[in-house]
Amino acid sequence: MVESGTEKDFDVNSSYSCWLRYKRFKDTDLAQKYLKWCSNIAAFEDTSVIQSALSEVNIGINGMLGVKPIISGSIDKPSFIFIGTLEKLKAVDISIDVNDENDIGDEGFLIKSVKTGDKDYIIVTGKTDKGVLYGTFSLLRLISTNTELDGIKRLENPSNPLRIINHWDNIDGSVERGYAGKSIFYANNKITGNLKRIRDYGRLLASIGINGIAINNVNVHKMETRLIREDFLPYVARIANVFREYGIKTYLSINFAAPIEIGDLNTADPFDADVKIWWKKKAEEIYSYIPDFGGFLVKADSEFRPGPFTYNRNHADGANMLAEALVPYGGIVIWRCFVYNCLQDWRDRKTDRAKAAYDHFMPLDGMFLDNVILQIKNGPMDFQVREPVSPLFGGLKKTNTILELQVTQEYTGQQKHLCYLVPMWKEILDFDTYAIGKGSNVKKIVNGKPFNNKYGGIAAVGNVGDDMNWTGFQLAQSNLYGFGRLCWNPDLSKEEITDEWIKLTYSTDKAVVDTISKMLLNSWRIYENYTSPLGIGWMVNPNHHYGPNVDGYEYDKWGTYHRADCKGIGVDRTVKNGTGYTKQYHKENAEMYENLETCPEELLLFFHHVPYIYKLKSGETIIQHIYNTHFKGVEQAINLKEQWKSIKEMVDFDIYQHVIERLEGQIEHAKEWRDVINSYFYRKTGIKDELDRTIY
Amino acid sequence: MVESGTEKDFDVNSSYSCWLRYKRFKDTDLAQKYLKWCSNIAAFEDTSVIQSALSEVNIGINGMLGVKPIISGSIDKPSFIFIGTLEKLKAVDISIDVNDENDIGDEGFLIKSVKTGDKDYIIVTGKTDKGVLYGTFSLLRLISTNTELDGIKRLENPSNPLRIINHWDNIDGSVERGYAGKSIFYANNKITGNLKRIRDYGRLLASIGINGIAINNVNVHKMETRLIREDFLPYVARIANVFREYGIKTYLSINFAAPIEIGDLNTADPFDADVKIWWKKKAEEIYSYIPDFGGFLVKADSEFRPGPFTYNRNHADGANMLAEALVPYGGIVIWRCFVYNCLQDWRDRKTDRAKAAYDHFMPLDGMFLDNVILQIKNGPMDFQVREPVSPLFGGLKKTNTILELQVTQEYTGQQKHLCYLVPMWKEILDFDTYAIGKGSNVKKIVNGKPFNNKYGGIAAVGNVGDDMNWTGFQLAQSNLYGFGRLCWNPDLSKEEITDEWIKLTYSTDKAVVDTISKMLLNSWRIYENYTSPLGIGWMVNPNHHYGPNVDGYEYDKWGTYHRADCKGIGVDRTVKNGTGYTKQYHKENAEMYENLETCPEELLLFFHHVPYIYKLKSGETIIQHIYNTHFKGVEQAINLKEQWKSIKEMVDFDIYQHVIERLEGQIEHAKEWRDVINSYFYRKTGIKDELDRTIY
Repeated sequence: MVESGTEKDFDVNSSYSCWLRYKRFKDTDLAQKYLKWCSNIAAFEDTSVIQSALSEVNIGINGMLGVKPIISGSIDKPSFIFIGTLEKLKAVDISIDVNDENDIGDEGFLIKSVKTGDKDYIIVTGKTDKGVLYGTFSLLRLISTNTELDGIKRLENPSNPLRIINHWDNIDGSVERGYAGKSIFYANNKITGNLKRIRDYGRLLASIGINGIAINNVNVHKMETRLIREDFLPYVARIANVFREYGIKTYLSINFAAPIEIGDLNTADPFDADVKIWWKKKAEEIYSYIPDFGGFLVKADSEFRPGPFTYNRNHADGANMLAEALVPYGGIVIWRCFVYNCLQDWRDRKTDRAKAAYDHFMPLDGMFLDNVILQIKNGPMDFQVREPVSPLFGGLKKTNTILELQVTQEYTGQQKHLCYLVPMWKEILDFDTYAIGKGSNVKKIVNGKPFNNKYGGIAAVGNVGDDMNWTGFQLAQSNLYGFGRLCWNPDLSKEEITDEWIKLTYSTDKAVVDTISKMLLNSWRIYENYTSPLGIGWMVNPNHHYGPNVDGYEYDKWGTYHRADCKGIGVDRTVKNGTGYTKQYHKENAEMYENLETCPEELLLFFHHVPYIYKLKSGETIIQHIYNTHFKGVEQAINLKEQWKSIKEMVDFDIYQHVIERLEGQIEHAKEWRDVINSYFYRKTGIKDELDRTIY
Repeated sequence: MVESGTEKDFDVNSSYSCWLRYKRFKDTDLAQKYLKWCSNIAAFEDTSVIQSALSEVNIGINGMLGVKPIISGSIDKPSFIFIGTLEKLKAVDISIDVNDENDIGDEGFLIKSVKTGDKDYIIVTGKTDKGVLYGTFSLLRLISTNTELDGIKRLENPSNPLRIINHWDNIDGSVERGYAGKSIFYANNKITGNLKRIRDYGRLLASIGINGIAINNVNVHKMETRLIREDFLPYVARIANVFREYGIKTYLSINFAAPIEIGDLNTADPFDADVKIWWKKKAEEIYSYIPDFGGFLVKADSEFRPGPFTYNRNHADGANMLAEALVPYGGIVIWRCFVYNCLQDWRDRKTDRAKAAYDHFMPLDGMFLDNVILQIKNGPMDFQVREPVSPLFGGLKKTNTILELQVTQEYTGQQKHLCYLVPMWKEILDFDTYAIGKGSNVKKIVNGKPFNNKYGGIAAVGNVGDDMNWTGFQLAQSNLYGFGRLCWNPDLSKEEITDEWIKLTYSTDKAVVDTISKMLLNSWRIYENYTSPLGIGWMVNPNHHYGPNVDGYEYDKWGTYHRADCKGIGVDRTVKNGTGYTKQYHKENAEMYENLETCPEELLLFFHHVPYIYKLKSGETIIQHIYNTHFKGVEQAINLKEQWKSIKEMVDFDIYQHVIERLEGQIEHAKEWRDVINSYFYRKTGIKDELDRTIY
């Protein structure tokens, strides 16, 4: 377990603060300007969430301006910052526009500069203390990014009600798909006592608006099944208590077979009366420890996890049984749609894993209780570097849904490669499903409003571990930041988010911002360039999923094939000749994907099997495209390092050095990718590179 | 730990006895014939080894003839079996031919029928009690296989002085490349207390002439390094005590860095005076527990194991330092030649793993002390289904060598597939190295005589675990049996060995013997047919090495490539165009392999890169050969099951059923092999099967 006393031993220890660096202003004029307001804080509440806000203000102002603000229950000073709920605002006779007041939602906030005759102050308020907390973080971010506060007015509500991080942490301390050390929650089959680190994590998450966290792996093994038992619940509650201070609800992944494994039942059949009672009592017990417990996250009947199928029940039967148990407490069941046949015969070309989630869940649309939410991975496969959007988005209409993204870079370089995912997520969120006509973007669908669903939101598999910089690769902090910001407001542009993160993390210096921004924004495409081409995915080493292996999943049981032969490559998923996957989309998209001419080229091999000599719109053949992108990707990776070197003097040396080392590793590994992919296809096709570059 | 009391719980419990079944004779006439001699045993010695022999006679005669023999120090009966050393034979005034007496070596025996006027008895004698033990097992085998004893005379000496089993057992109870359960020696980082099972193992090994056993994995991890410490040595000694009763010396694999890891030195440099002293004291300590300790088995500077290279010393420096420590006690160092670059860049076509062992060790020929023995794997790679013989055999002349075989079926079906290895081993042993002219077969080279080496022999990685039938697949017992018999006498034909094993294990019924013999003798070729073709090897899943994966090792660091492209396949190892490996052989073989026309076709792709349309002597192209053998291999696997079914009524039902289940698994997996290999090459070449069979 990492104790705070040991943090100084790490070279990159300054990265521990992530985007809450609150670096001291070098520009004293600017500091002076903010000091006017920041020296005095008017606050009238002492809920733990408000206390978190005030604590943060203290840290932030002290850090940036070198002044400890005076926090008092007074608005007598000529300038101050008011931090409190609308209720308190009224109590001190500060009024705001009634429209504004109505516009502030349960988690929303208003930041407003007010100038009256003798006063010049800033209001940070919300309907709830959570809103106030978000407003406070927002204000600190505005200052940190040197935003003009004079005359400012920001009224924000989160776009998504549920903004959740999933931890795939195991109680032995390992993290499934974790690339940043061990779990911050567990070690040696015990729950950590290091609550300081968890509180710091709460701060980070709250600062980007996250309001839920599932603290254990969706693959709930023997020991984790016990987290909902009385021997573990008091310690889960200690974690929940910390997160509660930051407006974050705690969730647990549960084992559907828990009534058998930790109860004394011999069935987990959702229709069994004893099973229902068992879960109801279990819920009662959990809520006795954690009164605001979020609910259950469930991976059932997927990749060998138990589920309702064992009893000939369907997913709705299973989820609803759990949901009923949680209803009295306002808890929810988040049920994952990642269900497919993981024992497929590779020789079977009819079964298509891409179709599985839709086939499983569409027939159940409307059958789930309203405190059940289906959690759907962004694509129909599994977090590949490029996938189409799952047709369940816009398909399901009578069911609460949340989008599941993956912040941890399982298939995208495992935090050894720079791969900034905000551009990918923006494309996903902006994807038009045509569910209710043009403009039915995923970002609208998932917040639940178009279909008047009770719940909606975005979840992601997190990327932090007990490495001192949280994410292994310090630059990977940007993915966690970007995820939170997009959950809050998916309309933010990728450039805005990126600029924010850089300014908060490093510096507001233009050269730094421009350089790192360019690096980040291009990095996904660079990674895509030297890995698997044109949306085909996979081509990685089995199990750990790192590094190139073109046939790694080709003759396997996971439903993940490229079907490459010496003539062509790609999976025909058309209705006309293929698996018929395209018809799971609404007409506009179905036609776009079905037709070779209109199918987006970056997804060409996902939808079509085409000859290597097929010409892309660029005029390149497929095979030449493969060669070109792979040579180019390596050049671009090399260039990332050059760009980073150009700002050497402008970033902390420890971070500089850390990033250089990762980028050097990336370059070498990019070459491995380039050479394996190019060699595989050259050997298979016999078609030479037009530019006669080295292929092995 | 398996206790004998639990053995009855297993379905295949009768397989526990392996080839020491001693089934009751159904033929009472025959029984009567043997009973004449067997009712009375004349024995005059009580060394533990002689006691083992007498105990075995008791078990065997009781089992086969239903009579408990009277063992007495008397030759007064008209018929009896004398069991004892030559010395005792003389003491009771039985004389044998002086030539015979001279011909019996230290481990040899004489079985002789003697008829005088009033007496008709059988002598089982040897120069040593070990010889007597081997003679006793031989006599029991003769009876068990219904051999006529009237007038019999068998004088046998083992061909190989060292006949050793290597256990790759780890102290946590796992067995590296073990397919028969857990270790019989260890569990939970402790040494077993179940000496009964070890004694039974000693019986099995002694019955086939094994005289040495290394009881821990050559990969000596942290905990195993401690086996030579005082906390473990008393328990190692308990095992050694048991094996000693069966004439088997115990060896330990050691960690070259032990002086650092369990000593208090900061170096393991073989030239360091303190290191030398450390090992000398360690040897003294070991021998204080185990006075006849065999010595050390060492994997050094191989696959990340420590070794002399760390200190800029060579293998001779390392081995000799250890050997010096063992000299006072008659111990030996067995130093493995499995040394190669396991971090090769697949893009590098000049480095050839096949050349590594020869390149490392040939320059050191003559530099090793005479109690150092180099242990050389049969082939230059790693126990593939087909490899040429290592050129170190017949290359090294001034160095003790032993041949290392692999009884455990790592690359040959992992005891899930039937793959009887005696035919492979016979080919290896009969391979002519031409080291001292024609007829310099490996079997002659390795016994050490041609070069007057002090030591020689054969070792093998064993295949037993704590499964009740020892080997997981009951038929895999045949490999252990055959290995021992070949060590003893490599001139035995594969048919002789096979017949013996079947008769001892199942029945002397001709249909049983003929059927199983045919199954066994064809099984290696069948396995080869449906796996990787023409000597190219590998094409397996990395790490566990089970199941097909054509590119599994192609773009990896292990030096294991097939270099297949759409035109051709194979590794050019010729001097003319390739890596030059062929020149490591003596002229006759070098030329044979160098020349495409004379290279044995089953090794064609090991030595040459050839186009798929190259025609084999059969008239088939390479590609058609691949298709044909793979379709044929599956048919043959199916036929194995049919053959086994034909003797259903003639074997115990439990064994019948067990074998049927394994064969059914083999058939399914053979289809997987067939389809992956055929599909891979069809997709890569675009060349259709002439017979238009299904390829995916």
